[in-house]
Amino acid sequence: MKAEILAIGSELLGPLRSETNSLWLTERLLDAGIEVAARATLADDRALLEAALRDARSRADVVIATGGLGPTADDLTREAAAAAVGRRLRRDGAIVEALRARFARYGRAMSATNEKQADILEGAEALPNSRGTAPGQLLEQEGRLLVLLPGPPGEMKPMFEEQVLPRLRARAGATRVVRRRVLRIAAMPESEVDEIAAPVYSRFENPKTTILGAVGQVELHLVAHGDGAAEADSRIEDLAAALRAALPGRIYAEDGRDLPQVVVGLLRERGLTLALAESCTGGLLSARLTDVPGASAVLERAFVTYSNRAKSEEVGVLPSLLEEHGAVSEEVAAVLAAGAARVAGADVGVGITGIAGPDGGTAEKPVGLVFVAVDGAAGTRVRRNLFPGGRERVRFQATQVALEMLRRGLLGLPPL
Amino acid sequence: MKAEILAIGSELLGPLRSETNSLWLTERLLDAGIEVAARATLADDRALLEAALRDARSRADVVIATGGLGPTADDLTREAAAAAVGRRLRRDGAIVEALRARFARYGRAMSATNEKQADILEGAEALPNSRGTAPGQLLEQEGRLLVLLPGPPGEMKPMFEEQVLPRLRARAGATRVVRRRVLRIAAMPESEVDEIAAPVYSRFENPKTTILGAVGQVELHLVAHGDGAAEADSRIEDLAAALRAALPGRIYAEDGRDLPQVVVGLLRERGLTLALAESCTGGLLSARLTDVPGASAVLERAFVTYSNRAKSEEVGVLPSLLEEHGAVSEEVAAVLAAGAARVAGADVGVGITGIAGPDGGTAEKPVGLVFVAVDGAAGTRVRRNLFPGGRERVRFQATQVALEMLRRGLLGLPPL
Repeated sequence: MKAEILAIGSELLGPLRSETNSLWLTERLLDAGIEVAARATLADDRALLEAALRDARSRADVVIATGGLGPTADDLTREAAAAAVGRRLRRDGAIVEALRARFARYGRAMSATNEKQADILEGAEALPNSRGTAPGQLLEQEGRLLVLLPGPPGEMKPMFEEQVLPRLRARAGATRVVRRRVLRIAAMPESEVDEIAAPVYSRFENPKTTILGAVGQVELHLVAHGDGAAEADSRIEDLAAALRAALPGRIYAEDGRDLPQVVVGLLRERGLTLALAESCTGGLLSARLTDVPGASAVLERAFVTYSNRAKSEEVGVLPSLLEEHGAVSEEVAAVLAAGAARVAGADVGVGITGIAGPDGGTAEKPVGLVFVAVDGAAGTRVRRNLFPGGRERVRFQATQVALEMLRRGLLGLPPL
Repeated sequence: MKAEILAIGSELLGPLRSETNSLWLTERLLDAGIEVAARATLADDRALLEAALRDARSRADVVIATGGLGPTADDLTREAAAAAVGRRLRRDGAIVEALRARFARYGRAMSATNEKQADILEGAEALPNSRGTAPGQLLEQEGRLLVLLPGPPGEMKPMFEEQVLPRLRARAGATRVVRRRVLRIAAMPESEVDEIAAPVYSRFENPKTTILGAVGQVELHLVAHGDGAAEADSRIEDLAAALRAALPGRIYAEDGRDLPQVVVGLLRERGLTLALAESCTGGLLSARLTDVPGASAVLERAFVTYSNRAKSEEVGVLPSLLEEHGAVSEEVAAVLAAGAARVAGADVGVGITGIAGPDGGTAEKPVGLVFVAVDGAAGTRVRRNLFPGGRERVRFQATQVALEMLRRGLLGLPPL
């Protein structure tokens, strides 16, 4: 089965934001075993919409259009669809009454323009909209489905999931099950991950694997299809196990959690507290950890020791050490980690010092040079890193390395 | 003039990432005075591509297709375009030679499949590709343009800007100039901004205004067209001045800077240093400020006083004050701000304490309650806030309010 998706609305054609309903629908259609052959975003133009709907219907088993079902003069999807499928629109009295009642609940009279939202394609089924005014519509003709959905995601998504998806699943084959899993790896370049992972995952036709690299992080997206849940589950677990074996200790999550969540979870399980002393990352590691609900049980305090004076006064980095090795050095990173833990009375300390750029680099200590140290119950380790990219990338990568060092230390894995 | 954009490639139809070439092209077309009526993403399917190209050409003055020009069996744009416009493909000997030379430069022999990249629509002009193998194509028929561009953005963008855009500009009117400006406002709901701004900007047909709301921030995007730079500049300044007058002191930037950049700039200009004591924001304010290059001249240090003990030990919040008012209180926020400045020897202090959620809220102190205080050279002010949304939104809004309070204090504007 093939689908096409049409997102309708001139406001979706600006340069500022891409339309999001289509991506969301694509994922759900793929999960139901339905491929998406085309996605289009269309202006509120009657002739354009009619042609696009007609063309899509001539090719696809399922056409889903979102938007253009509201009450204003710009909302032309109903009329265009009627022309495209050669049916008339019929005003549904019950829907008019429901609309009127909805307006009354909010203490407002309904203007006449709103009534056109009750216009339904002859032979189509109206899909009630519990979260807004415009109902959706579903028309089956010669074995093909045309589905009209409202544009606001808050209305479209529940309508699709509750009223459309079950029928699509039934058509695509009731027993077909899809399982997805995302394996996450931190502080390892995408090319290195793929060099190891590709020989493994390319042996598998099902699951299919997509590798997605971001700054400081690589994700392996696995999608398995099966006749029944047991088959899909076992297919996905087979590949996941093979990847785990190929990348021992490197996959930090398979359950959707991000790295700060994993580290906060490990510290909580062990009843350990954490203190940080950040220089070049300027609080970013602390901000990422405290974004996790429940971080307060773990993070005792953090110091952003941006000035040299702060490094000395807050966590006891001796001015002589700063003078001898410079603020960006293995030695200072180690004292930041140990000092933060000592001052806070915490079980684990982290220290970060480096040159995030764009200025401040030298031949000996270039932009991107960052020392990360952990101390205490996660072991005593310091790592020298040279990160590529601009200030933001350097800082983020430094926090990824710190988190991965914490994770490995807490789990007793070998150093990064 | 109207344009349609077709992005070609099955790999663009997954659920993970949306296609980006179209947004980029839309912005440049709009700047050249050409509206985009439709954007489509299409699978590598010969019949689908032919139909989509034919339909788009029947409607639009300019059709731009990206992708599907490579050497593999999946690359079908040339053949589909030839069928759609009723022309034959002609293999261009000079392009074949250039391709062969390119392969030779990298020490490789060219396989025969690569030759099809030299197939050009009869009557079309080949657009040289200095950054890759596949040339683009430009065909003018009955006053309408069909442009085929390679898919990789690194090849597509320079080809479009250097070889296509100048012709589109010439067609749309050579003297037509576009100016954009973005007015940014922090810590004010989109609905409130629009209530004040809409009566102003809706008086203007040119510039056009789009309002974009994000968490803790609203942007007014102004786009003016003019016959020459002077006219476009004066049109955009007229509207900007009217909006400035309607929202006195609320627009923090018109030059693309974000709020942390503006605040760091103000502190630097005045030679002032800053210290922070953050509780519920957990270092996020510090991280946002230190993301600005040169923040080290301004931020002396920051404390993430997540525990009550840290609040007392680091910035001198008396345990009795915590007991009497609770950690989330106006009184504690004020002492965090004053204490941070005092301990750091900084000119300005900021204190933030609140309940970010999802747990920890009570009837009296619900999730979203955040007190923000500034002290020192930016004045002494405390503000009670009740932010909507989840943990991440609450935390980000708190940092926006703190930054806006700093900005207003430093500029001598009335309290938020």
